[in-house]
Amino acid sequence: MSGPSIGVAVIGAGMAGRAHAAAYRAAGMVDGPELPDVRLVAVADLNARQAVIAARRFGYLRAERDWESVAVAPDIDVVSVVVANHLHREIVEGLLAEGKHVLCEKPLANTVAEAESMAAAARSAPGQQAMVGFSYRRTPAVALARQMVADGAIGTVRQVRAQYLQDWLADEKSPLTWRLDKERAGSGALGDVGAHIVDAVEFVTGQQVAGVSGLLETFVKQRPMPGERAAGTSIGGTAGVGYGPVTVDDAAVFFGRTEGGALATFEATRFATGRKNGMGIEVNGSAGSFFFDFESMNELHVYDGTVPARDAGFRRILVTEPDHPYLSGWWPPGHVLGYEHTFTHEVADFLSDIGSDRDPSPSFREGLQVQRVLDAVERSSAAESRWTPIPTS
Amino acid sequence: MSGPSIGVAVIGAGMAGRAHAAAYRAAGMVDGPELPDVRLVAVADLNARQAVIAARRFGYLRAERDWESVAVAPDIDVVSVVVANHLHREIVEGLLAEGKHVLCEKPLANTVAEAESMAAAARSAPGQQAMVGFSYRRTPAVALARQMVADGAIGTVRQVRAQYLQDWLADEKSPLTWRLDKERAGSGALGDVGAHIVDAVEFVTGQQVAGVSGLLETFVKQRPMPGERAAGTSIGGTAGVGYGPVTVDDAAVFFGRTEGGALATFEATRFATGRKNGMGIEVNGSAGSFFFDFESMNELHVYDGTVPARDAGFRRILVTEPDHPYLSGWWPPGHVLGYEHTFTHEVADFLSDIGSDRDPSPSFREGLQVQRVLDAVERSSAAESRWTPIPTS
Amino acid sequence: MSGPSIGVAVIGAGMAGRAHAAAYRAAGMVDGPELPDVRLVAVADLNARQAVIAARRFGYLRAERDWESVAVAPDIDVVSVVVANHLHREIVEGLLAEGKHVLCEKPLANTVAEAESMAAAARSAPGQQAMVGFSYRRTPAVALARQMVADGAIGTVRQVRAQYLQDWLADEKSPLTWRLDKERAGSGALGDVGAHIVDAVEFVTGQQVAGVSGLLETFVKQRPMPGERAAGTSIGGTAGVGYGPVTVDDAAVFFGRTEGGALATFEATRFATGRKNGMGIEVNGSAGSFFFDFESMNELHVYDGTVPARDAGFRRILVTEPDHPYLSGWWPPGHVLGYEHTFTHEVADFLSDIGSDRDPSPSFREGLQVQRVLDAVERSSAAESRWTPIPTS
Amino acid sequence: MSGPSIGVAVIGAGMAGRAHAAAYRAAGMVDGPELPDVRLVAVADLNARQAVIAARRFGYLRAERDWESVAVAPDIDVVSVVVANHLHREIVEGLLAEGKHVLCEKPLANTVAEAESMAAAARSAPGQQAMVGFSYRRTPAVALARQMVADGAIGTVRQVRAQYLQDWLADEKSPLTWRLDKERAGSGALGDVGAHIVDAVEFVTGQQVAGVSGLLETFVKQRPMPGERAAGTSIGGTAGVGYGPVTVDDAAVFFGRTEGGALATFEATRFATGRKNGMGIEVNGSAGSFFFDFESMNELHVYDGTVPARDAGFRRILVTEPDHPYLSGWWPPGHVLGYEHTFTHEVADFLSDIGSDRDPSPSFREGLQVQRVLDAVERSSAAESRWTPIPTS
Repeated sequence: MSGPSIGVAVIGAGMAGRAHAAAYRAAGMVDGPELPDVRLVAVADLNARQAVIAARRFGYLRAERDWESVAVAPDIDVVSVVVANHLHREIVEGLLAEGKHVLCEKPLANTVAEAESMAAAARSAPGQQAMVGFSYRRTPAVALARQMVADGAIGTVRQVRAQYLQDWLADEKSPLTWRLDKERAGSGALGDVGAHIVDAVEFVTGQQVAGVSGLLETFVKQRPMPGERAAGTSIGGTAGVGYGPVTVDDAAVFFGRTEGGALATFEATRFATGRKNGMGIEVNGSAGSFFFDFESMNELHVYDGTVPARDAGFRRILVTEPDHPYLSGWWPPGHVLGYEHTFTHEVADFLSDIGSDRDPSPSFREGLQVQRVLDAVERSSAAESRWTPIPTS
Repeated sequence: MSGPSIGVAVIGAGMAGRAHAAAYRAAGMVDGPELPDVRLVAVADLNARQAVIAARRFGYLRAERDWESVAVAPDIDVVSVVVANHLHREIVEGLLAEGKHVLCEKPLANTVAEAESMAAAARSAPGQQAMVGFSYRRTPAVALARQMVADGAIGTVRQVRAQYLQDWLADEKSPLTWRLDKERAGSGALGDVGAHIVDAVEFVTGQQVAGVSGLLETFVKQRPMPGERAAGTSIGGTAGVGYGPVTVDDAAVFFGRTEGGALATFEATRFATGRKNGMGIEVNGSAGSFFFDFESMNELHVYDGTVPARDAGFRRILVTEPDHPYLSGWWPPGHVLGYEHTFTHEVADFLSDIGSDRDPSPSFREGLQVQRVLDAVERSSAAESRWTPIPTS
Repeated sequence: MSGPSIGVAVIGAGMAGRAHAAAYRAAGMVDGPELPDVRLVAVADLNARQAVIAARRFGYLRAERDWESVAVAPDIDVVSVVVANHLHREIVEGLLAEGKHVLCEKPLANTVAEAESMAAAARSAPGQQAMVGFSYRRTPAVALARQMVADGAIGTVRQVRAQYLQDWLADEKSPLTWRLDKERAGSGALGDVGAHIVDAVEFVTGQQVAGVSGLLETFVKQRPMPGERAAGTSIGGTAGVGYGPVTVDDAAVFFGRTEGGALATFEATRFATGRKNGMGIEVNGSAGSFFFDFESMNELHVYDGTVPARDAGFRRILVTEPDHPYLSGWWPPGHVLGYEHTFTHEVADFLSDIGSDRDPSPSFREGLQVQRVLDAVERSSAAESRWTPIPTS
Repeated sequence: MSGPSIGVAVIGAGMAGRAHAAAYRAAGMVDGPELPDVRLVAVADLNARQAVIAARRFGYLRAERDWESVAVAPDIDVVSVVVANHLHREIVEGLLAEGKHVLCEKPLANTVAEAESMAAAARSAPGQQAMVGFSYRRTPAVALARQMVADGAIGTVRQVRAQYLQDWLADEKSPLTWRLDKERAGSGALGDVGAHIVDAVEFVTGQQVAGVSGLLETFVKQRPMPGERAAGTSIGGTAGVGYGPVTVDDAAVFFGRTEGGALATFEATRFATGRKNGMGIEVNGSAGSFFFDFESMNELHVYDGTVPARDAGFRRILVTEPDHPYLSGWWPPGHVLGYEHTFTHEVADFLSDIGSDRDPSPSFREGLQVQRVLDAVERSSAAESRWTPIPTS
């Protein structure tokens, strides 16, 4: 570490880059283990103008165009990588090689091979911390759910249902962005939002997914090239001038078993009209249950199966009490948190891990495990949905 | 009683008359104290055709035009009175004089004087049971709420908020029916639905309302005469041809204190656009709270204030378990009940009381107490909303 | 038909038998096409005492012990069959042979072969009506959902998620009843409640399921014999004295595609702690969505995707308006219905079909289609969850 | 103004002071009218240590002990005043006299006289902006509600019900803090949270409250002095050693009429066990309705009364779309905001007003109007709840 405070850089100045920047700035609001002081040193983006705007808005000392400048800068200790997935491996390994702590956005990579390489690189840099950005873990209600499972409050986990429902592609005229191109995006709903719920299930239950059977679907196979929305037409199934093929999944459904024998179902989609950010999870155990939906992120609904039937019911816990995870430093009860707090908590945890020289979670190894589940879903879908075990390392 | 089974008549063949008929027929479904067998003997209505249709639909032995025929019939033991409020006193007292058990629809009467006369008549007929039809008491969730308060589960009752929100008059072009005429209807929202929530508060808390401050409002002061909706116009505040004055309240708001020192607020309205039958009540005690809304009649939401803050929240109890009030004879858990079950339970309770020679509740005396609260609200509203104590008998 | 009114019998005097009896008696409350008058003639049950009690409670003219007496009785026109599934085929075919109209409880049978036989028998009795008792179709909110899909209100159906969540087996000490024995029950959660959601999906979308991939699970493999709950123990995985094997599924998960290309997921379970009768369905279309949960059976939540984003949201429709399916004859808006109304509506539809000589739906052929889906799920589960097309007849 | 960027100070380093500091720092995230750049110059607090900690956490240039240092500092343009209410007048007037723009926390003052003095001071400083911190106005859902009323979407406003329900005093053993002392706090629930809902009603409806009838209640009249909780006892109504009197209201209920003739009910309480920050408002108009609860701050439920009954229902609008107030610069749809965003939006509006030399709202004059309503409630409560008109200036 370069000095008494920690120098931070963010590579990527888009939406997620803003979330990381705001999080580093606000991390000090989270009470708990003393956090190191943070200096926002650099933001890097190929789009130089965007980097400059971000630098000014968040108070970074400088804007950069390339990640290599960040990698070699002596005043930078910690780097968030928030660029397109297919660029993760090269940048992250480059940063690790230069001694940086790295927080890499999810999914860890586009392929299992890339993820394996990155996990190996992290293993080879033992003094440096490497974490994957599964930020939904840091939703206080999700962290509380994990506590409850770990404490045995719901008994043996038997069933899990996890969903990530969005609708931003439901309109078949919306254009063919890079996110719909397998080369660049890796996969569609599965990798983008499905990765979150695989991690959430493994985090909350404390169990890995052991095997899956899945089905990927692309509802709209041709879309207008960006900027050509008005002109083209896909009527009749053949694309008009200015249409291109969608090469990723619009939706993915799969079920599986965890290593502990629980039955789990998953659905990731961008076609659930009316569902904006419906990241939901329900877990049924032998002694209780809970459910959660990110659209109501401050609520966890918990059922205690040991209560007499006359009094039993799902309790709507408003997860805003000082005793709740991450809450001691925020506002009075009932004064709710928002999406960006998941990033603030993530960064606070990461900085605290770095300060204490403690391995962060989710580690790259955990990110690799998620990648293997996603890969198994794809392989199952390509093989008549046949049951596909997840390899263990 | 005329024999081993009970002969029943219903005076009034409108909507509420149908509810009573169906209830007498279904009462045997309610398990519990052995109920006497029921014979549907007669239905009476000034509208002879409606009486005949009802007789056929429900299997009454005969249809009558006047209540006197019911009063003198030797094969009738129990009579429901479900006619316009201003007719209650005469009919009920006539039936009591002839030895019948009487179930009188709410509110007991249009005035305190009438209610006092009826309560006296009931007192003078000690072997006969007389009950007021505050059917919402028989909602399982409401009955469970009362149990909880009585058991001390929420501690000392401190605050109550009760609402009865409907919207069927929100359209200012809807016509001037008899319900908007003070001569016939007695009052508007206050007597019609406000009576229900006054009773519900007294039932659930076990405390009488001791004083109130209130305000009545008539938003739409002129309405088209029935059948003239299209022709007239009320623009400019002066009624067109075919308009007549609304002489009852459209909405009533009041607050009060119970004899035990709780603070209670009440609102009854027919102008809450979007609220169809929003009969709701929330009670806050020193150790817990609950809330209820009839539009979700199978749910009671209960907060246990003695649970640690980390785990506390409103529990949504689905009131469909065998251990819940009135539920043992119905369906498996989660198989919900409907509005008409409140009548079935009411009638089953009444028949059970008659079979056991037990005083029913709400008695006419309780009905009179509600009448006194409504009267105090009107008097307060007429006197600059000044605080008005409720007389006790 | 034997005369101006219709003679009715119910074979089976258990819980579902009570629901049918109450439904025949109340069917006249449902407005709409003029219904024939109904006489409750006979109830039959091997348990003679139960038959006598039912006869008295509902006013049947007589109680019988065997179904054959019902089959040959000249004063009976319509028969509900509400006995264990493995008895359906023999009784239903016997009744059809004697000229009765038959309403058979779901699932139609325990096997595809039985269901095929029954569908053939119904086809060979063209003047007689035969219907399967998928009563959830008659929930007003579900019927409204179908109307909306049929009217194009949500556009092309793309995704469906259907669940039937119960929890009455979550306690691993609850005993080994006949429902957990494959010989008698046919299957577990799949056939019992899974059948309902397969029918509901096909009804609401108007599309048949074309193929599936599934997984059945039995969480608790040994249970105490009835009456031995306290004595036995299953600790260590080996059953104690008085334990027997569970031979049906505790939970079933599957996904599939409809003939129209929609992606559908299904889950049926008796282990969803806290979920009492969570029969839920969500449909996402290109222009809108809806969701429904039977625990809130009077609500349909509808999203109109054509509304500008600023104003769009799921509308909670309280399905109690006179314009809603089945509602014109019941109570005012907001005065909710209950579980038993689904039977009342079913019977009213069936009687109306009989009166009009119109083919009822769901027909036995539709019941057979559901059976084929369930069978494909079982076969897929036995074959590594491999994709399994549904045969068409 | 001292230069191209704006120098900011916050007087008060407690919870609300942190909210203001975070808001000034994050204001640049809110898109819209170009905001001036902000420098966090000074934080002042009598508690010097707290000031120093705040300065370090948020990056203020310096910490101060007294407000006068802020008032005279030439590098400070804008000051937030977030100290106890009885100190507002002196500090705010001192700052205005020195040429500062002032954002004063709510309520504006403890008395009408103080508020009048402050409003006069603001009027006498025309080039300087003065705003009251009714931050709930800046909740996107509340701002959307106001838009809808202003656009006529719900027609004529007829009824309003507003609540602010908290429960932090429900425990009668919680200690006697300064907030329960009338000298320092001014009033209890009425001034603290009742002020918010009076402002919210006036903001959302665009109408002032014209008259009220109210009742204040103190449920627990003696409380342990701070630090003596374990020792004392209030059993028997007489306070033990170490108890002191509560001199403010625990709860306030009132109803009123707006200048436009709408009927409004209000309730503010700290005794609603289970309600943590239940700031709720429902408005019923002739053409529609909406309701809101801050515990679900990202949702506005809107009923459009012009839709046919078959399709009508409350729409749950997730107020996270780019078209919604304050949302264009934040996250994608469904990625919810939290409590602190209400401050961020407030500060962004204030800075934008300053940058554009535009009068902010709520102005001190609007704050004075709220004060007059609160004062009328107190006077009514002291006079048998008699109707009390609100004076207009």
